[in-house]
Amino acid sequence: MVKTEQIQVKTRGDCHVLDITNEVAAAVARSGLQAGVVTVFNVGSTAGVTTTEYEPGLADHDLKAAFERIAPEAGHYEHENTWQDDNGHAHVRASLLGPSLGVPFVEGRLTLGTWQQIILVDFDTRARTRTIVCQVVGE
Amino acid sequence: MVKTEQIQVKTRGDCHVLDITNEVAAAVARSGLQAGVVTVFNVGSTAGVTTTEYEPGLADHDLKAAFERIAPEAGHYEHENTWQDDNGHAHVRASLLGPSLGVPFVEGRLTLGTWQQIILVDFDTRARTRTIVCQVVGE
Amino acid sequence: MVKTEQIQVKTRGDCHVLDITNEVAAAVARSGLQAGVVTVFNVGSTAGVTTTEYEPGLADHDLKAAFERIAPEAGHYEHENTWQDDNGHAHVRASLLGPSLGVPFVEGRLTLGTWQQIILVDFDTRARTRTIVCQVVGE
Repeated sequence: MVKTEQIQVKTRGDCHVLDITNEVAAAVARSGLQAGVVTVFNVGSTAGVTTTEYEPGLADHDLKAAFERIAPEAGHYEHENTWQDDNGHAHVRASLLGPSLGVPFVEGRLTLGTWQQIILVDFDTRARTRTIVCQVVGE
Repeated sequence: MVKTEQIQVKTRGDCHVLDITNEVAAAVARSGLQAGVVTVFNVGSTAGVTTTEYEPGLADHDLKAAFERIAPEAGHYEHENTWQDDNGHAHVRASLLGPSLGVPFVEGRLTLGTWQQIILVDFDTRARTRTIVCQVVGE
Repeated sequence: MVKTEQIQVKTRGDCHVLDITNEVAAAVARSGLQAGVVTVFNVGSTAGVTTTEYEPGLADHDLKAAFERIAPEAGHYEHENTWQDDNGHAHVRASLLGPSLGVPFVEGRLTLGTWQQIILVDFDTRARTRTIVCQVVGE
């Protein structure tokens, strides 16, 4: 069986890391399914999803520093010449992180570790409202 | 239900970015399923899949520049000593990007954003024909 | 149908790369399902999963060198100030690689390439026993 749930969150952009674990867990609970996989998918090309231990050091500093090494905000991006905008680094970071994450659930519960949370990382250069599709497939 | 579809595409290698959205959408349409997840999986270890806004600036320049920072083409790779070949950077980049992407679909349509396309990035050092498995799971 | 299988492996930490292909294939075989997707999910926030050609050059040197560029072991991490520990780089690397990988299977066999293996990369700074959930969804 398949149940489609959506999450909407407001972000500040600029590498804002949001813990969306509770929202994903609630989507799985609403589905009524007991075992399967929830695919957490960010709609759009300047944000991505993964897991981390959600605490301020990693969320507000360390992850951003790594993305700054991979795709510096002040770097040269042909994308910005195409559209006369300023978010080339955001696109590159989002493609590398990826828009999609599959998380198993068993007896209705996500199989996350104790210090492992599902996060959305918004790389865009302005505040955004993000839509995340939670596709729940199981039985 | 599960339907297996395959895509074959010809690439130029050398960080060639191909928009495969239409091919994946067609695979979902052929499956006849209305809701679920399509797992887009590159067979092989020197290419990967993700999403981006597919336009020449990002596709032909900006993504490549980021991968060059992560795994420079001219860097030292023990892999090349093992096989006397030249694609160590291609393997490393492909492992980091990942071979697999899960994309939800609802009412037969992929839940992509307007400016979000599914891409294959071929990091190998020569032209290749790539096989991508689209495993469609749903109802 | 959904079948949940678990794998446990012992790692040395410090970017230890383990080939877990046989364990994942065995989990799919135990499930009895013939076609579908296995979601390979690392429980915890300092290791990740992907694919590579598993040979000593890539596994023991080249992948580690790339992660050292992205998140240097000797770098500054606020995470380490939070907890007075030493594994900030491990968290950042694991978030970038991702904890989850979807692999299709057809006629009971994973659709991997000949030189493509499923690997766990453990970034933590000490030996660990890792639990990997293999959620098998199919028919």
